[in-house]
Amino acid sequence: MDLTPADDDFAARLRISVPGLDIGPVQARYLEEPRGRYHGLGGWLVRPENTQQVAAIVSAANAARVPVVPYGGGTGLVGGQVMPSGVPPLILSLERMREICAVYPLENVIVAQAGAILNEVQQAAREHDRLFPLSLASEGSARIGGLLSTNAGGLNVLRYGNARDQCLGLEVVLPDGRVWNGLTRLRKDNTGYDLRNLLIGAEGTLGVITAAALKLAPIPAEQGTAILVVPSPQAALDLLAVTRDQVGEGVSAFELIHRQGLDFMTEAGLAQRQPFDAPPEWCVLIDLGLAAGHEPQTALQDLFATALKQGLVSDGVIAQSEAQRAAFWTLREAIPAANRNIGSISSHDISLPLGVIPDFIAHAPDVIARIGRFRINCFGHLGDGNLHYNVFPPKGHERAEFDIHRDAIKQAIYDLVNEMGGSISAEHGIGRLKVGDLERYGDPARLDMMRAIKAALDPNGIMNPGAVLRA
Amino acid sequence: MDLTPADDDFAARLRISVPGLDIGPVQARYLEEPRGRYHGLGGWLVRPENTQQVAAIVSAANAARVPVVPYGGGTGLVGGQVMPSGVPPLILSLERMREICAVYPLENVIVAQAGAILNEVQQAAREHDRLFPLSLASEGSARIGGLLSTNAGGLNVLRYGNARDQCLGLEVVLPDGRVWNGLTRLRKDNTGYDLRNLLIGAEGTLGVITAAALKLAPIPAEQGTAILVVPSPQAALDLLAVTRDQVGEGVSAFELIHRQGLDFMTEAGLAQRQPFDAPPEWCVLIDLGLAAGHEPQTALQDLFATALKQGLVSDGVIAQSEAQRAAFWTLREAIPAANRNIGSISSHDISLPLGVIPDFIAHAPDVIARIGRFRINCFGHLGDGNLHYNVFPPKGHERAEFDIHRDAIKQAIYDLVNEMGGSISAEHGIGRLKVGDLERYGDPARLDMMRAIKAALDPNGIMNPGAVLRA
Repeated sequence: MDLTPADDDFAARLRISVPGLDIGPVQARYLEEPRGRYHGLGGWLVRPENTQQVAAIVSAANAARVPVVPYGGGTGLVGGQVMPSGVPPLILSLERMREICAVYPLENVIVAQAGAILNEVQQAAREHDRLFPLSLASEGSARIGGLLSTNAGGLNVLRYGNARDQCLGLEVVLPDGRVWNGLTRLRKDNTGYDLRNLLIGAEGTLGVITAAALKLAPIPAEQGTAILVVPSPQAALDLLAVTRDQVGEGVSAFELIHRQGLDFMTEAGLAQRQPFDAPPEWCVLIDLGLAAGHEPQTALQDLFATALKQGLVSDGVIAQSEAQRAAFWTLREAIPAANRNIGSISSHDISLPLGVIPDFIAHAPDVIARIGRFRINCFGHLGDGNLHYNVFPPKGHERAEFDIHRDAIKQAIYDLVNEMGGSISAEHGIGRLKVGDLERYGDPARLDMMRAIKAALDPNGIMNPGAVLRA
Repeated sequence: MDLTPADDDFAARLRISVPGLDIGPVQARYLEEPRGRYHGLGGWLVRPENTQQVAAIVSAANAARVPVVPYGGGTGLVGGQVMPSGVPPLILSLERMREICAVYPLENVIVAQAGAILNEVQQAAREHDRLFPLSLASEGSARIGGLLSTNAGGLNVLRYGNARDQCLGLEVVLPDGRVWNGLTRLRKDNTGYDLRNLLIGAEGTLGVITAAALKLAPIPAEQGTAILVVPSPQAALDLLAVTRDQVGEGVSAFELIHRQGLDFMTEAGLAQRQPFDAPPEWCVLIDLGLAAGHEPQTALQDLFATALKQGLVSDGVIAQSEAQRAAFWTLREAIPAANRNIGSISSHDISLPLGVIPDFIAHAPDVIARIGRFRINCFGHLGDGNLHYNVFPPKGHERAEFDIHRDAIKQAIYDLVNEMGGSISAEHGIGRLKVGDLERYGDPARLDMMRAIKAALDPNGIMNPGAVLRA
């Protein structure tokens, strides 16, 4: 399908057909993405202020065959937000639609426009003594529409699920410019195909999310955090099972940390106070959030006692204050910072069936070693089976020397992940970075279904061309 | 699209192309459904024993334009399992594919074929000290494939979600006979469009689910149940909020019961011991499941004390033994039995935003009263916003006298539900019974998306024609 550029002529016509529309040439920041891998083509930038304007814009783009790139906070890690080839697109930023429309504390529901920033939504929930549990590093700039379109994950997935699980209803402008009013606050609704979940995670290729009804949760009355030293990844996994048996749904996070991450902090000069004299090979950070009247300290002490008896832990510290809790989390959050400082050759956001994770961690270094001598930092959301498996140059070497090995490293890891029944994208999505990987590792019948759905809902192929599926 | 009957000639060819296939004329029981509203056309019945056979059957049917009705336990309440008009279809029963394929206790995952019966799956989970939380009245005959295809709900949705929320991966035979191998055990997988949730709830119109990977949960160590008298539906709702604040995720069920249901038991001669001398206007059944070391009795006593102080309850009983817990649940489960005995004119499986439920309960009797003098039994899964709102003849009258009013009653209720932002099918699905209602109340853009997806994935329209969407 041939697409038409978002040129001056199209912009002029759009100005007339959508009176008062904020439209202008694209500033540079809309053409870059955090990894620096893609540089977007500059067409025109529109910043609609309501759903009707979005509908009019998309309708006009569809009639003229002009590609549309929906733009949220621009924090995605797989290049879904920039279009580096083809014809210059219309960039549709939701930034002026950032209202918190309503909060229903009794229903545990918040309704927000797609441009609302994550930490504004969190804050609005807190003001009503509620928790919006989605939480991730970019929460100061990521917007609800983008978070839903990429089905973002983060730190609390184990307990509350990913972005998809937080959503009750959507308002969406479809590729033909029609509005689907699906902004329901219902907990149960079995009236036909699940289009909400189809739009969530579609990365802007099937329509533009303009607003969402989102679930809130009670703020846990009591919170507690511990870092426990485990002898092996298998022990960490067994400890997860014991923790769930003893604490039930109160486990908010269960994060695996490898010594390499702690060593990187030292090497990078990030002055983090570490809880153990010698960094342990493996440890886990466990976070509990319990209802009133339950004592997380006691629960963590009991857990440690049980685990010690079963040989699942050898040492551990339980945070004795809010300040210490915060320090433990700061340590966990310093790992990505240290990684960036050292500079990875290749980073992998993978997931695996929980049971095979120890095997994967045992075997992956061998497949890497066949390519060369590298350092590996393996950490992540063990409770979700989601590892960030990142490969670094040997000490004293620069990343640039090894860029030549990036594809081989990536493929070796993905091959192993695929063989073991895992996923090559646990939480970051496909974007443009992993389109080829999806073609390589995805189920062929499923890929054909995806293509058929894309063709059916966006026959002109205007919505975010080249993301998820090859344009 | 013209379809071809599953006639003797087609059956003969199928016998040849799928050696050893169990195929024969359709027995009567495959042509009936529990409400007695639809009577299926008899074509041929196939009972494949593996996914390859399913694929070969669907492929042949697609080539010959023969309609296929996937058949699970036959317990659906909206006629999705029988095809009463058109040409005689091929009925594809999954009953011979009922294997529990694997249990992964450490991962909290069970993999089962689509024909596995729900209580067999529950039992297999229990044998590994795990809970498969899906639970509903027909669990002795409902099969996994049908439960997923209808996105079944039931008693534990508040805590564990509906069937959709229990599923990690699917194996599906697509309408062209290809197999999508999506039987993953991953907790996080962001590789493209969410087709799993599209197939779940599609009621057999987009393919045949042949197997599923399902989530398990720990069995709660401690359980407790109470029936509390509330002054009003609003108080019940406020009590739900207090319960969640105090007990967190430990609330397994929160069921609303109206006096009419208790009176029906007496009228129907169902000898249930009722916990109060005089049946209260409104009461709620609260079920807690807590982790080891937590005392549900104490939690319920604390809850009662708080609620009494806030004027949210006036009386209540907390089960003092497992026998008493069971008796409370028997009481709850006797409501549908009593309803059947009295005989409803029209039954409505509706959901509403939680906050408007008191308003709905206040206004619905007025719209009914405009039609005539009826009795109403309103009860259900209050925690999910899901009410079963059933309308009965006045005392001493037979249902048959009032059948003439059924459509008016249904429309009056659905109009009100729709006006208040609710759903006309909370957990039962659309099937054939509610196709017209979906057209009337559904969002037009969304309906068009559904039709476009159906046409894209099943261009010949062979999969369960007439269910969900008009054939």
